[in-house]
Amino acid sequence: MVKTYTFDKSNALMERARKVVPGGIYGHQNPIMLTRGAFPSFFARGEGSHIWDVDGNEYIDYMCSYGPIVLGHRHPKVEEAVRRQADLGNCFNAPGPLWVDLAEYLVSITPCADWTVFAKNGSDVCTWATEVARHATGRKKIAMCSGAYHGTHAWCTPAPAGVTSEDRANIVYFHFNQLESLRHTVAEHQGEIAGVILSPFRHDAGHDSELPVEGFLAGVRELCDRNGIVLILDDVRAGFRLHLGGSGEFFGIRPDLTTYCKAIANGYPLSACLGRESLRQAAQEVFFTGSYFTSAVPMAAALACLKELKAANGIERMRMLGEKLRDGMLAQARGAGFEVTYSGPPAIPYMTFKDDGGRYDRMKVFAGECSLKGVYLAPRHNWFISAAHTEEDIKQTLAVTEQAFAAVRAQFA
Amino acid sequence: MVKTYTFDKSNALMERARKVVPGGIYGHQNPIMLTRGAFPSFFARGEGSHIWDVDGNEYIDYMCSYGPIVLGHRHPKVEEAVRRQADLGNCFNAPGPLWVDLAEYLVSITPCADWTVFAKNGSDVCTWATEVARHATGRKKIAMCSGAYHGTHAWCTPAPAGVTSEDRANIVYFHFNQLESLRHTVAEHQGEIAGVILSPFRHDAGHDSELPVEGFLAGVRELCDRNGIVLILDDVRAGFRLHLGGSGEFFGIRPDLTTYCKAIANGYPLSACLGRESLRQAAQEVFFTGSYFTSAVPMAAALACLKELKAANGIERMRMLGEKLRDGMLAQARGAGFEVTYSGPPAIPYMTFKDDGGRYDRMKVFAGECSLKGVYLAPRHNWFISAAHTEEDIKQTLAVTEQAFAAVRAQFA
Repeated sequence: MVKTYTFDKSNALMERARKVVPGGIYGHQNPIMLTRGAFPSFFARGEGSHIWDVDGNEYIDYMCSYGPIVLGHRHPKVEEAVRRQADLGNCFNAPGPLWVDLAEYLVSITPCADWTVFAKNGSDVCTWATEVARHATGRKKIAMCSGAYHGTHAWCTPAPAGVTSEDRANIVYFHFNQLESLRHTVAEHQGEIAGVILSPFRHDAGHDSELPVEGFLAGVRELCDRNGIVLILDDVRAGFRLHLGGSGEFFGIRPDLTTYCKAIANGYPLSACLGRESLRQAAQEVFFTGSYFTSAVPMAAALACLKELKAANGIERMRMLGEKLRDGMLAQARGAGFEVTYSGPPAIPYMTFKDDGGRYDRMKVFAGECSLKGVYLAPRHNWFISAAHTEEDIKQTLAVTEQAFAAVRAQFA
Repeated sequence: MVKTYTFDKSNALMERARKVVPGGIYGHQNPIMLTRGAFPSFFARGEGSHIWDVDGNEYIDYMCSYGPIVLGHRHPKVEEAVRRQADLGNCFNAPGPLWVDLAEYLVSITPCADWTVFAKNGSDVCTWATEVARHATGRKKIAMCSGAYHGTHAWCTPAPAGVTSEDRANIVYFHFNQLESLRHTVAEHQGEIAGVILSPFRHDAGHDSELPVEGFLAGVRELCDRNGIVLILDDVRAGFRLHLGGSGEFFGIRPDLTTYCKAIANGYPLSACLGRESLRQAAQEVFFTGSYFTSAVPMAAALACLKELKAANGIERMRMLGEKLRDGMLAQARGAGFEVTYSGPPAIPYMTFKDDGGRYDRMKVFAGECSLKGVYLAPRHNWFISAAHTEEDIKQTLAVTEQAFAAVRAQFA
């Protein structure tokens, strides 16, 4: 007998939420991103690769909290490290010893980096990195890819509300995978560009993901070197899912600054920016602080998370499971007569239906069907595999996606 | 027998830290802010009002992690709520029920607010509030007090490194407690000012604190109303130490937006911006998100923290203990023949020696002596009382400060 998923408790909470929070839930967790009526709005608990919403519905989780959960929810080694530190305390007048242990560990696994700083959000470190680039070079302009996401700050937020023209007066643009466009931008602003910021592969909202084409990243590196530009790799989304030394190592580029967040601490609030020796002095001079920047519990989580990721060969496991999921879904799509694009690295996949246009109608039906059958994946955002996923999870998932393709077939005959 | 405080382990950790973190420790926890040789750089644990550094030295803690620790380290009710939530999970694809419970509770205790949003840093919410003001009014400029601290973002960071002129092109300034200067600023930029942001009392770095003078805050409110300007109260530092409904209630002003961080969750990473109904739509439209914004553990901590603060009458307790500390220290200063300025509310005090100038020489000796005798207070930053401090703590502290005044006397005869 198949359990019917209903969302009475979620809906009741959402009704209350709308009264006291603008929109109820904001940001990328905004329910308008999902399929109306087919997704829960509130979660009660998680364990490994599974999550339960407040109505008790269980899901295999392919969003992993939009990235952070890389070892699975409540991984025992991470939770043990967290408890051990929490028993001593978390937030003090200065850091604890884990500040040093974690910084040393991060630097030791990151070939391009000599130092690190810690913060709380991806936005914190991406913005700070641009400021370090400016201070180090004495230049103003930052080049970024059109459509890329580097956080919510005014210089790069995807939504224009509240942004002034001055916030972007020093931002110039180029196209990912089009070295010529960066060459053009650099030439147009000769001697003015402090930094180039880009993600290791293109994962813009509303686009199929694009891996870097042959020569693109090396060309970016060379252009930066030739023009004294600081190269910033925004590894917030992909970091620690492709290579323990940073996604730059995976794709063969060594940036000057690398930003991390999400998967660094299996869900505990931490972000980091790692950098080269030559930028140490500038980094020391760009003011950076926050009430919780030195908190010890997330550092305990990060050390345990990264060490376990290595010990358990988690990155290879995510790739292997991601490939099984991809191969299975692509075969199902073909069988159902759909052309789909399944893009991005296997551990961070993104699927669209050909001819689904910007409205994601087919993907919304597909993801909604999956959700109602216990597989949680967002219709218009890349998914995330974790090292906690099992072959059994993938098998169960493919049984569900088979039905989801059929449902799309039925609705878009 | 008096224990001698040494810092061998702290110093060894600092030596390691300097290799892998620019400056070793950055931000306001930067050791240059303290007295060379007299302060630890790393902490091992905390319990109530006491903290222990990595060398095992014990201190009565008057910095409270620069504000967050309002109930004392590891308060049992907060830790229990944290553990209960952590056993279910922390960071999911969407919030948990505590998102709603906490939002409802915050709105219920805050007379001027109808809704709230949550984030991680004080900087997050202060910057976002200025963007909401801009979006709501369709204007660009933000008026802030010269010298005020609203976070590390480029529009307001106290350090110029990495900041461009465009970052501040839309910031205009006025002087705290000088209504005429705000009148002038508003007149000069007639119809252009979206928001006025200020703290409930003046607590700028390097200045004695100033409580608002009679009529100032009411005058600010009136000017904002008359000119369609959004009034933002930055209650990051003072919030929940003066009034459970926000420091605006304490000083008699009702802002349109209020920002909180620090004391909201007894050290767990959470910040919030509360606002009026009239700004709900604008708030919904200004994009705001972060990997950990919906995490449940800090929300469990915040609910437990605020409810305990109320149940235990913590705010009144901090005032009472702060007054005892103030009265005792002022009597000692007089007895030792010093003119000191002891400013700010009793729960958030700031002390300077007259004629100590901008160099804080006397304060550095004073705070250094205190540290070496087990009382931790920073020489050039306001202090924070917590509800965990006891009358016995104050008594022991005053025994130490008596000797610290004598040490300053001896050195500056």
